[in-house]
Amino acid sequence: MMNETAIKAIVEEVVSQLAKQPSIQPRSVPIAVSARHCHLTQIDVEALFGSGYTLTHKKDLSQPGQFAANETITIVGPRGSIEKVRILGPVRKSTQVEVSATDSIKLGLKPPLRESGDIKNSAPITLVGPKGSLYKQEGLIIAQAHIHMNPSDAASFSVQNGEYVTITTTTERPIAFSKVLIRVSSRYELEMHIDTDEANASLIGKDTNGILAKIEGSS
Amino acid sequence: MMNETAIKAIVEEVVSQLAKQPSIQPRSVPIAVSARHCHLTQIDVEALFGSGYTLTHKKDLSQPGQFAANETITIVGPRGSIEKVRILGPVRKSTQVEVSATDSIKLGLKPPLRESGDIKNSAPITLVGPKGSLYKQEGLIIAQAHIHMNPSDAASFSVQNGEYVTITTTTERPIAFSKVLIRVSSRYELEMHIDTDEANASLIGKDTNGILAKIEGSS
Repeated sequence: MMNETAIKAIVEEVVSQLAKQPSIQPRSVPIAVSARHCHLTQIDVEALFGSGYTLTHKKDLSQPGQFAANETITIVGPRGSIEKVRILGPVRKSTQVEVSATDSIKLGLKPPLRESGDIKNSAPITLVGPKGSLYKQEGLIIAQAHIHMNPSDAASFSVQNGEYVTITTTTERPIAFSKVLIRVSSRYELEMHIDTDEANASLIGKDTNGILAKIEGSS
Repeated sequence: MMNETAIKAIVEEVVSQLAKQPSIQPRSVPIAVSARHCHLTQIDVEALFGSGYTLTHKKDLSQPGQFAANETITIVGPRGSIEKVRILGPVRKSTQVEVSATDSIKLGLKPPLRESGDIKNSAPITLVGPKGSLYKQEGLIIAQAHIHMNPSDAASFSVQNGEYVTITTTTERPIAFSKVLIRVSSRYELEMHIDTDEANASLIGKDTNGILAKIEGSS
């Protein structure tokens, strides 16, 4: 038979050990807000801006080699259109337009939530440029929130490419984004990308950081 | 001296009991999305729609006695305007316009995040109706996410008026809203009210429920 003091001591020790070893290790990640934008193939650039046209450089983006072009297009759906949608360069193998859910209501379209690059059977969209327009059967998506990081960051955060994590904000309107994709490449700078709906829901401005937590049991 | 088997059994029992008794008790709450709208005083109704004008009934809202009026107005800021902003009735003691952060960017204004009714030193806004326009020195807010409930709901959820709770969604883009105000009145139907940014950030459609969890240590 054990005495009560011993039981109490054991319980206290267990509780204390549990408190000391949370499954969640918080880490800070800079948050960047992606406004609606598009990526175009060279063929589509020429269809919209004229034969032989090449995108011109407006400013560098945080991910190395990526840039905002001076060129913009109008995107059109059955219910409405949105002007001055920025083109991001360099040109890609597939044309892809990324909008927010708010934008999609204005356009009258239902783009799926997808990882960038995964456009198969996504929503159709009409692109209008100064020298032509295009009806794309697919290419319109809402981008899955994700975190770019290099292998060293991934090791430090104990996360892997393709894993989902939770990111918590500490703004005036705090939110936990519960399904954020980890994307690892040696080309990447550490940065979380969210769309304008996600940013505005949490009143996220410039220079906001989120706290990364692993989803228990997800890896 | 206790043997190891006994210690192991106690530890296992403690851990199992802790797991069974979380401080968080999940409960389901229906979520309603509030599009941009305004509440007007009778004086302001008459300034915008004409002397002696009274709001007309379009449809009942979920909170008893509240209704969407047939009447809409245009709201205008230094950067842009938004047409067809629905008026909700009945008339109130103060005129108040509730917009999303996305709307506020379009208007070029910086409304504070406020509980409905708390408009002191909020943002200015111009209201335009068919018979006149008004410049309100204050009245434009972004509404704090909140949950209406009656005292019986509050007792069942173990929450109190004025308390903040966390609401988790289980949509394709799951979010935890970490600062949601509890508002208790015998007049209220159980319902969480969020704005369109919050709804679109979590891809919340009709008939979505959230899970309520108390914030530890908040009450």
